[in-house]
Amino acid sequence: MLLPLGGAGEIGMNFNAYGFGPPDERKWIVVDCGVLFGRETETPGVDIIMPDIRWLAEQREDVLAIVLTHAHEDHIGAVGHLWPELQCPLYATPFTARLIEDKLFEAGITERVRVNIVPLHGHLNLGPFSIDFLSITHSILEPNALAIRTPLGTVVHTGDWKIDPEPLLGEKTEINALRKIGDEGALALVCDSTNALVQGHSGSEADVRTALTDLIGTLKGRVAVTGFASNVARLDTIAKAARTHGREVALVGRSMHRITKAARDTGYIEDFPRLVSEEEAAQLPPDRILYLCTGSQGEPRAALSRIAAGDHPTVSLGPGDSVIFSSRIIPGNEIGIHALHNKLAALGVEVLTVEDHFVHVSGHPARDELAEMYRWVRPQIAVPVHGELRHLAEHARLAKSLQVPQAVVIQNGQMLRLAPGRAEIVDEVPAGRMFLDGRIRVHEGEGFARTRRALGFAGLVAVTLVLDQRGRLAADPAILFEGIPDAVHPPVREAVAETTRRYNPRSGKEQDLAENVRRAARRAAADVWGKKPITRVELART
Amino acid sequence: MLLPLGGAGEIGMNFNAYGFGPPDERKWIVVDCGVLFGRETETPGVDIIMPDIRWLAEQREDVLAIVLTHAHEDHIGAVGHLWPELQCPLYATPFTARLIEDKLFEAGITERVRVNIVPLHGHLNLGPFSIDFLSITHSILEPNALAIRTPLGTVVHTGDWKIDPEPLLGEKTEINALRKIGDEGALALVCDSTNALVQGHSGSEADVRTALTDLIGTLKGRVAVTGFASNVARLDTIAKAARTHGREVALVGRSMHRITKAARDTGYIEDFPRLVSEEEAAQLPPDRILYLCTGSQGEPRAALSRIAAGDHPTVSLGPGDSVIFSSRIIPGNEIGIHALHNKLAALGVEVLTVEDHFVHVSGHPARDELAEMYRWVRPQIAVPVHGELRHLAEHARLAKSLQVPQAVVIQNGQMLRLAPGRAEIVDEVPAGRMFLDGRIRVHEGEGFARTRRALGFAGLVAVTLVLDQRGRLAADPAILFEGIPDAVHPPVREAVAETTRRYNPRSGKEQDLAENVRRAARRAAADVWGKKPITRVELART
Repeated sequence: MLLPLGGAGEIGMNFNAYGFGPPDERKWIVVDCGVLFGRETETPGVDIIMPDIRWLAEQREDVLAIVLTHAHEDHIGAVGHLWPELQCPLYATPFTARLIEDKLFEAGITERVRVNIVPLHGHLNLGPFSIDFLSITHSILEPNALAIRTPLGTVVHTGDWKIDPEPLLGEKTEINALRKIGDEGALALVCDSTNALVQGHSGSEADVRTALTDLIGTLKGRVAVTGFASNVARLDTIAKAARTHGREVALVGRSMHRITKAARDTGYIEDFPRLVSEEEAAQLPPDRILYLCTGSQGEPRAALSRIAAGDHPTVSLGPGDSVIFSSRIIPGNEIGIHALHNKLAALGVEVLTVEDHFVHVSGHPARDELAEMYRWVRPQIAVPVHGELRHLAEHARLAKSLQVPQAVVIQNGQMLRLAPGRAEIVDEVPAGRMFLDGRIRVHEGEGFARTRRALGFAGLVAVTLVLDQRGRLAADPAILFEGIPDAVHPPVREAVAETTRRYNPRSGKEQDLAENVRRAARRAAADVWGKKPITRVELART
Repeated sequence: MLLPLGGAGEIGMNFNAYGFGPPDERKWIVVDCGVLFGRETETPGVDIIMPDIRWLAEQREDVLAIVLTHAHEDHIGAVGHLWPELQCPLYATPFTARLIEDKLFEAGITERVRVNIVPLHGHLNLGPFSIDFLSITHSILEPNALAIRTPLGTVVHTGDWKIDPEPLLGEKTEINALRKIGDEGALALVCDSTNALVQGHSGSEADVRTALTDLIGTLKGRVAVTGFASNVARLDTIAKAARTHGREVALVGRSMHRITKAARDTGYIEDFPRLVSEEEAAQLPPDRILYLCTGSQGEPRAALSRIAAGDHPTVSLGPGDSVIFSSRIIPGNEIGIHALHNKLAALGVEVLTVEDHFVHVSGHPARDELAEMYRWVRPQIAVPVHGELRHLAEHARLAKSLQVPQAVVIQNGQMLRLAPGRAEIVDEVPAGRMFLDGRIRVHEGEGFARTRRALGFAGLVAVTLVLDQRGRLAADPAILFEGIPDAVHPPVREAVAETTRRYNPRSGKEQDLAENVRRAARRAAADVWGKKPITRVELART
């Protein structure tokens, strides 16, 4: 049984539950527990979105474990928030485990939960599930696919992956192990769909190393490179390219320090060039320094945005300097990133991106790689996950074209029976999104972000009517306008005054008064403005 | 003298003023008068943004004319809004003039202003300016470059353009005329920068015709194609491709009807296939119909979004049907367009886009085309316009690499002396953005959209304190929460109650009370929520 509660409908908040056994004695394991990042347009004021797992939490006695495939936020970011609802053991490989510990620390639950470390190529028995960790390649250290064996067959859960023949750091893809599972006969392939719309092959980190090293060699002045801190192979590439061209490397931004420390703690990048501090870097000639910065997505509080705004404490860039964006634009971040490019251009800094230079490759499989994976595993059933519906649909179409007998598109909350018999959706459980709104977790259905989006569109008129004990108006109405052009205020004031003048206190219909005032105010605003503000009327009683 | 008031800092709201003569007798012409579309993230509730032209409006006696290069909204969209501030004659070629008349009608000023029609390849004398209209190619009918001749030299203002050897409809680029100006010696080239970051060549409409026709031939079921209605050559391509493959064509969406009518009224598309109505189309077999729909940018009220939502009155799509997006994604629209793709995928509709098929070419010059233009005109001064700062900067860099003696990046409001002497910024005038907020025009500096954005982030707490004539609290405070999670309410209520309890009416410090309540409420919210709502306190007096 496969039950995705996140990731089947969005690229992010991956959360998949696998169940085995008849309903009354079914045991579950969870694969990945990630977040999705909120967007100002759809979810203003919400930084982090995670799956609603209440259905699974109700049977937490039967949830044996959470297994994490790799350390990206969309796979581990919700562990600190959701572990208390499941309270089961965690399993991950060393580098991933190291970063999960940070999550548990932030959530203040380090004492309550232990992360069980699984070695690379390791094995795990959890009730009816026998799990092999298969090394694969992606854009982070220690990505794993899982071969989940049950008495009814073997499911290969890919996690995030690509085929990188030269990942530079860490293991290569265990192609032979995947082929062997195919030879034995695989029941299902539950597979990354992120780039199912992309033709060709994602390319290799080794190719980026060559191109980036050459590019950095052509630059004069200060060089700053920004990218995803979690791509340690890329950081290693950039640091070594700097040294090749006689530049010292300084890390700028918290994630850069955090990730490189985790990589070093777990035995990676032992030959990483010696770093200089931001302060030391500031003393060096411009052509002797390279900054490795956070902020490739235009995040306003990250290092690069602060540098571009001229308010970074130690790093400043100007004419003759260059910034390389060794990253892609995550959809939805275009405007923020372009604004950052514009700010850098205003400083006279040259901006180099993947649009005009070969400075990035994706970590997800393009169609040729998906086809290769299907040739290795040859599953009976293809289940696309990790994608929006358009990616899942196209991935399923591709799988069918590759002769996979069944390709099933499912969405969060749909329970798919993989065996016995044909794959079939047999149930649908509550699913959805939880928002971390500031520090408070709310269900998307509670609508606070939606209300704020409406406030963003047309602002608010709040009227307070003061009534005395006999229901008479005891003061002039207090009217508050927020986010509404001045020209709208007088007609609204007039409408409120007119409506209250017509009120007969002896009628006793105070709620009618409130509703009439609300409607009159809203209508008056709409008449002059063409938009209807949120309009609220409160009663105060003396 | 060149003074851009829009377009030098954004792709949109193009507005350039050219001045000639000493300051006290300087005459001006305006080239283009466009809008920029608002974005929910940055300017929630604002659909349309236009330049602040108050400085020019103050000397409107000396503004001789507004000349419009072509009919895209970012070049003519503000005419109805801004003409009243300048009240000068308008000049445009026939198709452009036809669409401007719609703008004047919407603004209710048809009676007051006449659009003077300039024939293609026409000429215009306006005070010290002698202007030649040069046909060029772009993604609309009748794009014009202007050769603006003055006693101090000739400026070529490109408007929007590309080099399309086969534009299919309308004129080709007057290459010889441009070369001739180069031979005579051009002072300046004021040029489109949209695609200054794009390598290569934009490609031709003729190539898209071949590819789209082939693609449509492969499709079964209903086919809907969406794109920019203003690209009449593309509409013609699609309609003819439909007929080639035995499909009838129905237009869906107001702009499709409006633009094809304007094109027909001005003598274009006389061989456009006969159209069927939406109602007739619904009666045809699926493989006999092609819908040409508005909504390629995911606009929620456009035809395609309504079809995807299943609430279009006559058009419905389902499994086996296809939608072709014959368009690019305008930056900032990614999320909305992807959501539309996902909705169509949920209906079982196959979505075909420029990501996987050759169904669109840009209307703006890529770098090879820019280089070609510089080889034709060979100006003394390059002035990049029509772009964000990053485009202008890169365009200037390119121009310098092409041996243009001077390339000057200027921003809205900067007055550039082109002659005599070296080009130089000699003044800076008030500039900025006006928002059409609902129906009311407000200056961006008034901050209503910014306030609403803040409301979107953290909502609002509004407290009304009722005081009697002696300054005593006469009622319990009325507290309104909007867009704020429930858990935040009790501590805020408690903070307000506590602060009012400590108030001594005999102190007479009512404003202090209000401010103390505001701060206490805000702090209480921040403590529990981690975010600070907009907090307002009103006083009502009995």
